[in-house]
Amino acid sequence: MAASADFEAANDKYAASFDQGHLSLPPARKLAVVACMDARLDPAKALGLKLGDAHVIRNAGGRSIEALRSIIISQQLLGTREIAVVHHTDCGMLTFTDADLRSQVRRDLGEVVDHISFLPFKDLRQSVVDDVNILKKSPLVLKVPITGYIYDVKTGKIEKVPT
Amino acid sequence: MAASADFEAANDKYAASFDQGHLSLPPARKLAVVACMDARLDPAKALGLKLGDAHVIRNAGGRSIEALRSIIISQQLLGTREIAVVHHTDCGMLTFTDADLRSQVRRDLGEVVDHISFLPFKDLRQSVVDDVNILKKSPLVLKVPITGYIYDVKTGKIEKVPT
Repeated sequence: MAASADFEAANDKYAASFDQGHLSLPPARKLAVVACMDARLDPAKALGLKLGDAHVIRNAGGRSIEALRSIIISQQLLGTREIAVVHHTDCGMLTFTDADLRSQVRRDLGEVVDHISFLPFKDLRQSVVDDVNILKKSPLVLKVPITGYIYDVKTGKIEKVPT
Repeated sequence: MAASADFEAANDKYAASFDQGHLSLPPARKLAVVACMDARLDPAKALGLKLGDAHVIRNAGGRSIEALRSIIISQQLLGTREIAVVHHTDCGMLTFTDADLRSQVRRDLGEVVDHISFLPFKDLRQSVVDDVNILKKSPLVLKVPITGYIYDVKTGKIEKVPT
């Protein structure tokens, strides 16, 4: 059965005890998190964030270059002044190359995606360093604290990565 | 104080009772959610998703065109077969235009970002319809169920948008 069939029943329960309608638009902790889309990672729970605390930007790999549009909006219009980048162990991005996925899409969908960089990586630690440094060096990102973490999907623990 | 200063203490608590280390990489419910980064929206809670259930892709506005790289990876490499798009009331994307933000960045940062589409919108309902249809019409996205929702930040309720 489609997952969406369950959304309304689950949401009825959530809304029945919802008491957070007073939160304001700008994030209370002035924080933006860039994290992987992975199903085993819940950035709010792993970092102790409450509803209203932080912008949470997520994509395949938690790649910061793709988060740039969102970060500019977050900082320029909504006042965030800190960024955390969160990648994780056993990431799918460690398992393929651009050439692999481009070939697969060409074969299975009959479409050419040679213009898309899928942003896989071979070294998890380096991917965090890279993604923190992309933001630190971008003239479009304010000079704010930017920290990088690896989340362990087996233990739930985060480890700060020196950058 | 920087929010990151609290991450390790909060994460120690989270990890101390963590018992989800057995989850596998492909999302259990074969679902990918595309949602706004807004601090007042927790897609997992609002839709009743458990850890391991779904990929969660988030950006400013929950715009699906920017989620395309992640969705291709999600479907082609990790087997998801359903998509939900979640936008929300009182969205920051309703408050500016590309011209506004480009001017602000030029003035405050001294940088030209005329090449960046910030993807704001003037009609929330239409933005959900647009973002569902972008995915439905893309030859890079599989023919799977795709549903669109508006989340109400005042009540915690979701409303399915006919598309």
